[in-house]
Amino acid sequence: MKKLLVDVHSHIYTARLVSLLRSRSVNPRIHRESSDGTEKLAILPQEVAGGRTVGPQYWDVRNKVSFMQRHAIDVSIVSLANPWLDWMDAKQAVTSARECNADLEEYCHQATQLFEDAKGSSIQPERRMRAFGILPLAEGVEVDEVVKCLDAIKAAPSLCGAILGSRGLGRGLDDPRLEPVWEKAAELGLVLFLHPHYGLGSDASQPDGLWGQQDNGHVLPLALGFPFETAAATTRLILAGVFDRHPQLRLLVAHSGGALPILSSRLASCVAHDPHVCNRLEHDPRYYLGKLYYDAVAYGPEELEGVAKIIGRAQRYGPRAASADVKLGIARMHFGTDHPFFPPTRHDGTVITDDQTEIWRSVSENVEAIDSVSSWSDADKHAVLGLNAVSLFGL
Amino acid sequence: MKKLLVDVHSHIYTARLVSLLRSRSVNPRIHRESSDGTEKLAILPQEVAGGRTVGPQYWDVRNKVSFMQRHAIDVSIVSLANPWLDWMDAKQAVTSARECNADLEEYCHQATQLFEDAKGSSIQPERRMRAFGILPLAEGVEVDEVVKCLDAIKAAPSLCGAILGSRGLGRGLDDPRLEPVWEKAAELGLVLFLHPHYGLGSDASQPDGLWGQQDNGHVLPLALGFPFETAAATTRLILAGVFDRHPQLRLLVAHSGGALPILSSRLASCVAHDPHVCNRLEHDPRYYLGKLYYDAVAYGPEELEGVAKIIGRAQRYGPRAASADVKLGIARMHFGTDHPFFPPTRHDGTVITDDQTEIWRSVSENVEAIDSVSSWSDADKHAVLGLNAVSLFGL
Repeated sequence: MKKLLVDVHSHIYTARLVSLLRSRSVNPRIHRESSDGTEKLAILPQEVAGGRTVGPQYWDVRNKVSFMQRHAIDVSIVSLANPWLDWMDAKQAVTSARECNADLEEYCHQATQLFEDAKGSSIQPERRMRAFGILPLAEGVEVDEVVKCLDAIKAAPSLCGAILGSRGLGRGLDDPRLEPVWEKAAELGLVLFLHPHYGLGSDASQPDGLWGQQDNGHVLPLALGFPFETAAATTRLILAGVFDRHPQLRLLVAHSGGALPILSSRLASCVAHDPHVCNRLEHDPRYYLGKLYYDAVAYGPEELEGVAKIIGRAQRYGPRAASADVKLGIARMHFGTDHPFFPPTRHDGTVITDDQTEIWRSVSENVEAIDSVSSWSDADKHAVLGLNAVSLFGL
Repeated sequence: MKKLLVDVHSHIYTARLVSLLRSRSVNPRIHRESSDGTEKLAILPQEVAGGRTVGPQYWDVRNKVSFMQRHAIDVSIVSLANPWLDWMDAKQAVTSARECNADLEEYCHQATQLFEDAKGSSIQPERRMRAFGILPLAEGVEVDEVVKCLDAIKAAPSLCGAILGSRGLGRGLDDPRLEPVWEKAAELGLVLFLHPHYGLGSDASQPDGLWGQQDNGHVLPLALGFPFETAAATTRLILAGVFDRHPQLRLLVAHSGGALPILSSRLASCVAHDPHVCNRLEHDPRYYLGKLYYDAVAYGPEELEGVAKIIGRAQRYGPRAASADVKLGIARMHFGTDHPFFPPTRHDGTVITDDQTEIWRSVSENVEAIDSVSSWSDADKHAVLGLNAVSLFGL
């Protein structure tokens, strides 16, 4: 029997955001390369080679539907790609969040129409595209605006949570001003999808930054900087006691928790040995990893297996000191693709822009990673590929 | 039968370095707190609470021997603690490296005398203390001086390798000027112990840095920043092709490889999708994780088990595409304590300075982590606790 495939990690830019990015002369922006006429998306202040080549796969719903059909994805939960609204002023962020959420709702409706004629999924057309909404998280925004936006997202039929970066209102996610956001999200049962953007790297303590002077393309900020950022943001949330105060908060962490799972016993030891923190939390830090949700975008079976075990041991550190149970870890992991990033490439690494027929390695790697975890049963794999998402998002 | 216990991760400052650090008025330095008279070591330009409390456990060989006896450690391979000679000018670094290596040799001799009267180990007194030497790695040093120092270390009877940080000659470890260092270390069969120091955190792309504004003591830079730094430095070495050109190079990576093992399939995917890097290396990046050596300083059994599996799959990506074999991973892991860091604390987190009778939680956690990996045999545990080190260092 075909396993249900739900993609919880799939990005788009709305048409309105694309226009906005095209109109800008500083990053983030979309600009046309004079050399070959391709459009490039430049995100960070310093960008490698002017940014990454972009095309309709970043904004056209037909392209997303075709991609889903081609890879037998039953349901996608799309989210805006970084850097979201981080760069906007407060007023624009509030307006843009409202517009984006309306556009995302419309995007899901358009997808329904396209799926009407499509075959290959047991899921009804109107249930195959869902979206994370966007919150007006930018410097200067009043937290009340963020809370109101959560209510609006809850009322929108196709939106089932919200994506957010690590910067919050400008001071990170351990900013006490965000308390009403966690409270409201927990109350509404909305899933918050924590995703990296900055990718670090320009570390002032090192003369050449963390990534040095060699030309390694986007590899270091993407492969390492992204999961470092996620690990730091999640750890700061834990240390701020957010999960003690809001145990019902549903936080989905990108890229299988980034670097945090493998460092969580080290974190516990550092916390236990530090007078500034050792008596602050109700539980050992490892306990809180069992409160999180994870995508399964880790590209390898050993990574997934390890992360599930680390999540599954959380209750060893809980109030009842129960035994570790890897099943609890498996139940919190969710297939994702990171589409349309990591597009297929030619042998020389250049992007294949006519991608309407290609099977994406970045997708098949993540499916195979789940399918080849040697210690997981068929039911476990079924769960991670789709059933866990059905349950988490009430699809 | 008592298992042989070898500690490959154990730090000291030589008496001469301590004097030097005491004489300084800017960090790194050791200074006396006027409030309670304790001495504090301040390492980074911005230090939490003036630094960490230090005492004789950081420099007195009697203290190290007592610590070893108390924890049934048969052999320690001590190394200078960070920041090594990073902060010195070129001339001082070359002189200091020579002096430190002589002092480390003397330290091992003194330990031998102390062990003469000691019981509790099957290992002969003169074989119980070994040291990593130090290299003159600082800005402005000629690489020939580093190479000469490797020869001197090879000739010193108690030195069996060298510790190094991530900065090299000021441009990181992927600096092409370091090529003769890797060549010479590989030729001599010396183990290079890669250890973090800077711990990142002051990321210029984020207004409040990676660690934010909340008071989390040393937790974030130590628990996350250290392993991030190690992962970045090791990845840069891999991407620079160092292990393609020097497959015999023996690099021991601190803290079980930092964040790298769990991110290595993501790294492979990012490399495969990046035109700047995709055709540069002879193998999939995961292959090179099988060329490294790791300490077992990860504080949890799930972490150790996961890392061993990830190392053990390396040959799947090698020239013969062999099956994964976790035994190959286990064979590359080595018990360590990180002594005298993570000293025992009272309930309020303050350091217990009279530590002559305490069992250190940071030690027992790392022993227990190895002992409780459920999928490892007794022989596997024996190997990681000591026998692997006997073999790697020819003890």
